[in-house]
Formats: sequence, structure tokens, C-alpha cells
Amino acid sequence: MTDSFTLEEISDHIDGEILSGDPDTVITGVSAIQDAGPADICYCGSAKYAGYLGSTNAVAVIVSNPVETAAECVLLVDDAYDGFRKVLHLFKPDRSSGFSRLHSSAVIHPASNIGENVQIGPSVVIDRDCVVGDNCRIGSGSVLGPGVILGNDCLIYPSVTLLAGTFIGNNVIIHSGTVTGSDGFGFVPAAGGEHKKIPQNGNVVIGNNVEIGANCTIDRAVTGSTKIGDHTKLDNLIQVAHNVCIGKGCFIAAQTGIAGSTVIGNGVVFGGQVGVGGHIVINDGAVIAAKSGVTKDVDSGVTVSGNPARPHMETLRLGAAVSRLPKIIELVKELNAGKKRETEG
Amino acid sequence: MTDSFTLEEISDHIDGEILSGDPDTVITGVSAIQDAGPADICYCGSAKYAGYLGSTNAVAVIVSNPVETAAECVLLVDDAYDGFRKVLHLFKPDRSSGFSRLHSSAVIHPASNIGENVQIGPSVVIDRDCVVGDNCRIGSGSVLGPGVILGNDCLIYPSVTLLAGTFIGNNVIIHSGTVTGSDGFGFVPAAGGEHKKIPQNGNVVIGNNVEIGANCTIDRAVTGSTKIGDHTKLDNLIQVAHNVCIGKGCFIAAQTGIAGSTVIGNGVVFGGQVGVGGHIVINDGAVIAAKSGVTKDVDSGVTVSGNPARPHMETLRLGAAVSRLPKIIELVKELNAGKKRETEG
Amino acid sequence: MTDSFTLEEISDHIDGEILSGDPDTVITGVSAIQDAGPADICYCGSAKYAGYLGSTNAVAVIVSNPVETAAECVLLVDDAYDGFRKVLHLFKPDRSSGFSRLHSSAVIHPASNIGENVQIGPSVVIDRDCVVGDNCRIGSGSVLGPGVILGNDCLIYPSVTLLAGTFIGNNVIIHSGTVTGSDGFGFVPAAGGEHKKIPQNGNVVIGNNVEIGANCTIDRAVTGSTKIGDHTKLDNLIQVAHNVCIGKGCFIAAQTGIAGSTVIGNGVVFGGQVGVGGHIVINDGAVIAAKSGVTKDVDSGVTVSGNPARPHMETLRLGAAVSRLPKIIELVKELNAGKKRETEG
Repeated sequence: MTDSFTLEEISDHIDGEILSGDPDTVITGVSAIQDAGPADICYCGSAKYAGYLGSTNAVAVIVSNPVETAAECVLLVDDAYDGFRKVLHLFKPDRSSGFSRLHSSAVIHPASNIGENVQIGPSVVIDRDCVVGDNCRIGSGSVLGPGVILGNDCLIYPSVTLLAGTFIGNNVIIHSGTVTGSDGFGFVPAAGGEHKKIPQNGNVVIGNNVEIGANCTIDRAVTGSTKIGDHTKLDNLIQVAHNVCIGKGCFIAAQTGIAGSTVIGNGVVFGGQVGVGGHIVINDGAVIAAKSGVTKDVDSGVTVSGNPARPHMETLRLGAAVSRLPKIIELVKELNAGKKRETEG
Repeated sequence: MTDSFTLEEISDHIDGEILSGDPDTVITGVSAIQDAGPADICYCGSAKYAGYLGSTNAVAVIVSNPVETAAECVLLVDDAYDGFRKVLHLFKPDRSSGFSRLHSSAVIHPASNIGENVQIGPSVVIDRDCVVGDNCRIGSGSVLGPGVILGNDCLIYPSVTLLAGTFIGNNVIIHSGTVTGSDGFGFVPAAGGEHKKIPQNGNVVIGNNVEIGANCTIDRAVTGSTKIGDHTKLDNLIQVAHNVCIGKGCFIAAQTGIAGSTVIGNGVVFGGQVGVGGHIVINDGAVIAAKSGVTKDVDSGVTVSGNPARPHMETLRLGAAVSRLPKIIELVKELNAGKKRETEG
Repeated sequence: MTDSFTLEEISDHIDGEILSGDPDTVITGVSAIQDAGPADICYCGSAKYAGYLGSTNAVAVIVSNPVETAAECVLLVDDAYDGFRKVLHLFKPDRSSGFSRLHSSAVIHPASNIGENVQIGPSVVIDRDCVVGDNCRIGSGSVLGPGVILGNDCLIYPSVTLLAGTFIGNNVIIHSGTVTGSDGFGFVPAAGGEHKKIPQNGNVVIGNNVEIGANCTIDRAVTGSTKIGDHTKLDNLIQVAHNVCIGKGCFIAAQTGIAGSTVIGNGVVFGGQVGVGGHIVINDGAVIAAKSGVTKDVDSGVTVSGNPARPHMETLRLGAAVSRLPKIIELVKELNAGKKRETEG
């Protein structure tokens, strides 16, 4: 990893076209358009930030349409955001651990199977009958309970807890503080309060190319598995209850909670702090706005919002009506007063 | 623990009556009615799942009323859900740790007292003056600060942090990532912004038979104790602020937050993502619907919902009224137009 | 630290005036006014608790105005709450670790720099190129990734995870389970679901005198830094997304979430469970009521509430209007019926 590239090198890396600027211009960093220094490259991907084009200190800007800009160099690509992504890869800082590949303070049960080229940090604990695939990295202090299976190329950050029987596919990223395989919340309630615990016999199954943020909780199933499908991405502090089944390619923003046995299709997008009730079906491509409370099934492709969640246009319509309500009440009172006068008059 | 039982063995275990099926039928697993394989037992406890009775692949079903079903064997019990609970116990998978009872990598202060038959995992840290009761299990990487007291038969999962002075009763389960005894959020605000911290001198006291989910935070009290009563069950990612006092036998669903000094009676039930303000009293048997924002005291046995939380029937009534609001506004506009015409006419 | 003080000693410590009581009265504890024992001191700072003045068992009470009380001793100070704070310091329990200053089970990379008088607990991991300032305490099981910088006098509780490049000022407190430097939630979405991860090249920068509660998540920036300003205090389970910039002296209550690139001024106060959208500006001194959903910029000094958040008086006005809505609908129906009778009559 080097710390500087020429405009031409970057252009080649992102399949771009140099619209202006000297191909030998040296670029030493990547930054947001409004924060960029004089040797930085940035991107402009939305109207919201176009206002900075004229004043940016960046030496180069990545765009998907020709623009006028204070930046000397302009790189044209099909998708500016994707170009930015590729440039971020070029300038990725070195965050590799200074510890040896298998740190001596890690505790690995002999009846577990560790793949090739695996990195295991200090104080990691791997219990019996685990399988860790090739090229996995497991950060300091993480714990794998008995029988945890990790595919290849997984990145488990420090302080992650994968409890007994968790099954994880290939190329999965799990951030610090996340717990998989905690017991689902199930009890036979007793009137006297001495509720009886329902054993949670199932596990958690996470597909390939999944990313799970920090301090999430993914409960194990009562029987069978709580499932998260391939390419689904979870943000931080998310609760996934027992027997939830999440499809492929979903985005779930922070602090969302999904109650037990709910089924979520493919490509569903959740804003933050959404709550979804139990035993609900959210179909493919639905969009759930932030802070919604979903109390019934959501059809494919529908955007819902509010609590209880309704089709978004309806939520907006009701919100607009409520905004007008004080004036409407005044009007009704006037009409009623007029009516009374008539009746009395 | 074996992996298969006969119908008769299961029937005996759950105090059931064989309504149909050969008592010698071999059953090798327990499952949800819709997912069951041909050697599985399942249960049907609600109308919602009765539709699967005709098509289930299960060999046996537990019910509390005679039913027609595709399953060969039918077991009748008083409470199907409780029968299911007992069968889950029979088929509980072996998740025991492969490590020795007191792992050599655990760090236990000599001035702490460890009971009989205790299991302490790798990388556990137990500071001075702790007491760990008999038959406790403490999972890998968990930390007990100075003076933590654990009763007998407690199950502390991996990566739990019990800070100084936490007092825990008997038969308590605490899931991974949970923190007890973090400082309450208390400051003397300063206009200039240099707020002064209020020392949090108190502790956390957890009763018997309590279960606390994953990644919860239970703050210590300013003085005295933050308390969670016997048989109360907390789901994941729950915040309990300083000096909160929760009674016995409560259920609190995920991502609920309870602000400081609030008092909660016995048998109170919370949906998920509820917020309760500080210095509030929620009386025995109240039910707080998911996502409610509780801003004032709740009477015994009352169900509240909404934000601000109101009696649930009132929330429903207001919600229904709001749903009709756009049409009402149209009507008011018509009435007003008529009125104007009259006046002008 | 002793366990008892005379009234006079306490009065001197808090710059108080003894309004009544024997200066030699021995006080052995500090407590809430309603819970106080006969040798305890308490305070009365608000009308809400004034009702306990007549019945408290406390021997002494701190007030900021002369009062009648059952307590023998009365101490007058300018600010009773601040007096209480100082007394809590006097009676702070000893929670010091029993372990040696640098525990042998801690793993500290040789290319890190540890200051003077630092305490590092068992199972702590400190990766390469870290700097830990003087007088820091790092609790058991905490992890510092590569290149983490801690100023002087920081208190890092057990089980904290500070990931690569986190920069922390002086006199900062971070509670257990909190993660700084997890990746921000950024992807180039793909229609087919194979979303591409945006590398998160930035870090987290935390100012001086900041306190962060338990189980929070502070994501690293895409480029540059996610920032938390001096004297800002975060409660538990809070989500701070990538590139958020929080000013000085803010209070943020539990379970609040702030989406990416949002900018928060100085002295902003958040209730619990607030959600703030991305790319929003909340100006100095704004107050965001609990459970608000902030979808647009908030002006300086304004209090907002509700979802979507509006100026608080407007939220109250709309809430009051909605409460009257069922009756208004009745009235409109009557008016309409009268109208119809007229038209038909």
C-alpha cells in the first residue's frame, strides 16, 4: 500500500476518463468534497454537495457528469459513488494487528479445526468442535462457543461472541460487541409470576457476504434456525429475535428490532429504529421508513412509515391532515356557532 | 441425553394422553409444526398455526384439544405450549464447554470465594471479594468486578460484565454482552458546558430466577440499589437506568428503555422499544404496548399504548379518528362552502 | 477514605452553612431523602421530593432554602444538588481493583507506549502503536486496536473495545461494552443485491472530559473523523454513525441514534430513544424531546418533539387537537345531518 498515486493511476484504477488535469498530478489522499486538502481527491455524487464544486480545495474530483469546479482535475466515471469506493480502497490505511498470526494467549480447544492462513488475536477463546475456514481473522477477545462454524474469508472483529452452534458462511464481517446465539425470549407465563423458560434448542445461520454491525443481538431459534440471507447488511445495535428469517440483500439500519418468527423477503430496506412485530411477513423489496412500527404484513415493493405503519403516502396524507387540524377545529366551531345562531335566531 | 424417545416416553414425560398413534413410535426431534420432519414431534397451540395440522410432516403433535391432523400420533395435554416446553428439554442439544471446569487462563483473585461445582471459562476475570455460589457457570471472557456476589445455580454467558458490587440471587441467567453496574447518567449541568459528574455510589441488585438478555445495560444507583425483582425476564438491548426498581414476574421486550428512579410493579408486561420517563410509577399488572412512550404513572392492570402513552382503547379511538380525518376535512370544507354560499346568497 | 464525617466536616466540604443541628453530629452515609437511615445525610432539591422533608429518617438534609424538616440537621448551600454531588464524593465506596497495576495476563504490544501510573487489568489487549497517557485505568478484558491514542487520566471500564485509530482526549470515561471505530454503514447498493462495501478509512476522535455510557457504538468516518466534543456526555446504548460531528457540552440520553454526517452544535440536549436522520444540522442549545424523530435541521435554542419532530409547542397543540378529534367528528356529523335536513326540507 503506497500513500500517493498519480491522477492517471487513479483514473486507470476506477475506469475513469480524465476530463481535465495533468495525468501526472500527485494525489495523496481521499476526502469529502467540503473537507478536502490540496492534494486530495473527492467525489461529487449528489445535488446536495454540488455547491462545494466551486470552492473545494481538492485537486481532483470524481463525477458522473462533466462539471465546472475549482478542482484542477476532473475524472469522469459511470457512477461517481462507486468510483469513490474504489479510490477509498486505494488509500485504505493499514490497520493490521501487530500480533503474531496465532497469538499464544488465545485458547483454542484441540477438538476444533482451524483453516489455513487464519489470524487469531490475543485472548480469543474457541471452544470444542468449531471450524474456522481459511483466511479468517478473529479479533482480540472474541469468543466462539462449542460447534461454531465459520466459512472462509470471514472477518470477526474484537469482542464478538458467537455462541454454540452458530453457522456463518463465507466472506462475512461481524463487528465488535455483537452476540449471535443468545437465547430467544420465550416463556410459558404463569399467573403467579413464576414463568417457565422455553428451551431454545435451535441456532443462528448466517449466509455468505453478510455484514453485521456492532453490538447487535441475533437470538438462536426455538427449533431450527434464525436466518440471515446472503449479502444482507445490518447496522449497529439491531435486535433479531428467535426464528426470524431475513432474506438476501437487505439493508437494516441501526437500532431496528425484529420480533420472533417474522419473515423478511429479499432486498428489503429498513430505516433506523424500526420495530417489527412477531409472526409478520415483509415481502421482497419493501421499504420500511425509520421509526416505523410494523404491525401487519407488508406487500412486495411497498414503502411504509409511521406507527402503526401504513403505506407511506397515506402516512403523509394523515400527517398533513393533522397539521391542519387546529384550523379545521376553529372552522367547525364557527360553523357550529353560526348554526346555533340560526337555530336560536 | 439421548437423541430419540418413543411416543410413550414422551407422553409420560409431559403427563400427556396418547389420543392416537403407536406408543412405540420413535421420535428423534422437536420442531415447529410447519417445518417438522417425518420423525419430529411438534405442537399446535393457537388458531394461527392450526392450518398446518392437515399438512404437517410431523409424526406427532401435542395439543390441548382433540384435533384432526396428518400426524400419526396425537398427544393430549392441559397446556400444549407447556408440553412443547417439556419436550424441548428432552431434546436439548449438548452445548457444554469442552474446557476444564476452572480454566487455567481464568484470573481469579485470591480474595474471592468460589463455590462447589462451579465452571469458569477461559479468560474470565474475577476481581477481589467476589462470591460465586455453587453450581454457577461463568462463560469465557466474562468479567466480575470487585465485590460481585452471585447466588447458586447462576448461568453467566460469555462476555458478560458484572461491575463492582453487583448482587445477583439464585438461578439467574445473564446473556452475553450485558453490563450491570455501569454508572447512571447523572450530572450537575453547567451553563458553560463543563458539567459535573454525580458520583454513582450505589449498586445493582438482581433477585432470584431472573433472566436478562444480551447487550442490556443495568446502571448502578446513585445511592442504594437499582433493583430487578424475582422471576422478571428481560429481553435484549434493554436500558435500565439508575435507581429503577422493577418488581417481580415482569416481562420486558427488547430495546425498551426505563429512565431513572422509575418504579415498576409486579407482573408488568412491556412490548419492545418502549420508553418510560424518569420518576414514574407503573403499577402491578399494567401492559405497555410496543413503542409506547410512557410520560406519566400507569394504573394497575391498565393497558397503554402510543406516544404519549394513553389507555389503549383511547389510542385506538384517536387512531381511528385520525384515519377518517382527510374525509372529515373534505366534509367541513363543503359545509363551509355551503355556509358561504348561504351568506353571500 | 473514611466512613463517617461530622456535620461540620461535611458543611466545610460543601461550603455550607449549618442552619440547625449539632456540628459534631456523626454522619455515616448518604442517601435519597425517602430511603435515608438515621445516620444518613440527604438532599432536597425539588418540589417533587419536598413532601418527604417532614417524614425523612435522615439526620441531615442539604437544601438551598431554609425548610421545616424532621431531620435534626439542616445544611444550607447555594445549589443543593451540587452539595449532594460533593457529599457523594466523600462517601464514594472503594471499588479499586485487587489486581496488580499491570496484570501479567494483559497483552501489550512492545510498539505501544504506556504512560506513568497506568493501571491495566487482566486480559486487556493493547495492539501496536498505541499511546496510553498517564494515570489511565483500563479495565479487564478491554481491547485497544492498533494506533489507539488515549490522553491522560482516562477511565476505560472493563470490556470496552477501542478499534484502530481511535483518538481519545484527557479525562475521558468510557463504560463497559462500548465500541468505537466500528465501520460506518456504507454500501453501493446493487439491484441484484450484491451490494459493495464502502471502505471506512476514517477514525473516531473524542475530546476531553467526555463520558460515554455502556454498550454504545461510535462508528469510524468514511474519511476524516467522527467527532465528539469536549464535555459531551452520552448515556447507554447510543448509536453515533460515521462522520457525525457532535459539539461540546451536549447531553444525549439512552438509546438515541444519530445517522451519518449529521452535525450537532454545542449544548444540545437529547431525551432517550431519539432518532436523527443523516446530513442534518442541529444547532447550539437545541433540545430534542425523548422519542423524537428529527428529519430536518433544528434551529439554535429550539425545543422539538414528536415524529416527525416539530417545535414542541406545535406538537403539543396538534396533540391536543387530536385528543379532541372524536368529539369534533361527532359535531361535524351533526352539522352535516342538519345541513342535509335543510337541503331536503
